[in-house]
Amino acid sequence: MKKRKVAVLLSGGLDSSTILYWAIKRGYETHCLIFSYNQRHSAEIRKAVKIAECAGRPCTIVDIKLPWGGSSLIGRSGRIPPGKVSSKKIPSTYVPGRNTIFISYALSFCEAAKMDYIVIGANAVDFSGYPDCRPAYYKEFNKLLKQASLGKVSIKTPLLKKSKKEIVLLARRLKVPLRHTWSCYEGGRYPCGKCDSCLLRAKGFRQAGMEDPALRRNWAGQ
Amino acid sequence: MKKRKVAVLLSGGLDSSTILYWAIKRGYETHCLIFSYNQRHSAEIRKAVKIAECAGRPCTIVDIKLPWGGSSLIGRSGRIPPGKVSSKKIPSTYVPGRNTIFISYALSFCEAAKMDYIVIGANAVDFSGYPDCRPAYYKEFNKLLKQASLGKVSIKTPLLKKSKKEIVLLARRLKVPLRHTWSCYEGGRYPCGKCDSCLLRAKGFRQAGMEDPALRRNWAGQ
Repeated sequence: MKKRKVAVLLSGGLDSSTILYWAIKRGYETHCLIFSYNQRHSAEIRKAVKIAECAGRPCTIVDIKLPWGGSSLIGRSGRIPPGKVSSKKIPSTYVPGRNTIFISYALSFCEAAKMDYIVIGANAVDFSGYPDCRPAYYKEFNKLLKQASLGKVSIKTPLLKKSKKEIVLLARRLKVPLRHTWSCYEGGRYPCGKCDSCLLRAKGFRQAGMEDPALRRNWAGQ
Repeated sequence: MKKRKVAVLLSGGLDSSTILYWAIKRGYETHCLIFSYNQRHSAEIRKAVKIAECAGRPCTIVDIKLPWGGSSLIGRSGRIPPGKVSSKKIPSTYVPGRNTIFISYALSFCEAAKMDYIVIGANAVDFSGYPDCRPAYYKEFNKLLKQASLGKVSIKTPLLKKSKKEIVLLARRLKVPLRHTWSCYEGGRYPCGKCDSCLLRAKGFRQAGMEDPALRRNWAGQ
């Protein structure tokens, strides 16, 4: 059978690193797409490149400029709010249209490079409430892609319904180099431990009964 | 009633210039988005800015880099094929994922600037056979936007089912400054008269019984 080709959206965080290893484990031919969108910090890009290197997979960095901002995650001016995982309001860290833009670029890449799937680490269980992380969004996106690519490209969301605990356990099983992953919204030397993303990650590791190797590494200055 | 705010995707061609004037005529508060994606020529951007100026509407130029190319319209190396309007194959001028990327950016803009509609001049009657110009594509995109923006943003495609002749007549009625519009895929001083886009435009003007003022202007070197 022909080897399926997939584009993996890689941010260098826990979830996207896990889906890269998931895709490799499934025998897909993988290519990583890393998006630079004027994030608050460049740590995310560096970590993503490192993860792709660890996995021995090629990557392309895609430069995106959003002239209109609209999120505390873009640039350095906005304040990242402390985590409120249970909040029902869309948090200020939501980047307008971000996943829609990422997936559109991935569609373009897949059409140009004749690839079959876009794999994204979206998660709708332990998540920050972003509209573009929900199952209904991906269901509709797949219907759109069917039209846009004439049935050639579709999205896979292997983590969509997993808890952070399950993702941590899956990452361990797949031997994801967790010490190199970076989830914090802030661009400090160490994870802040206070933002939504840090809180969700900590919860996952705690419930999985594991120590987070990224914390050990960073806090020990290794 | 609150004035509706719309983002108009403006390329400086006949269709997109017409929808800008259509939106103004309907009383919408309009903002133009002009995309620079390493087209073969910069005439398109200049013409689009000129049209926005003629209409007295603000515009934002969005810079998009597609590192993977994949179309004879991108860069200067590929050859633009002569027009074959009736062909059933997707032509080489198709830019992978282009409209999907444009609309994703427009979604981001509309969310950030609290706008209601994205207006695009897509046309599925006298068109080049691109998959992202068909009604089924826009129907699905609107369903996706409903999820992505939680019902706040949607697309309008006022030209989708109009013939080029009808578009030319509408443009005349709306007083679109047709002499400034540019449809040719090539980046020469004058429209090439041979590419798909030139042929479709010429057909529209011929059937509408009108001379194309852009040709008169350009060929006379005015």
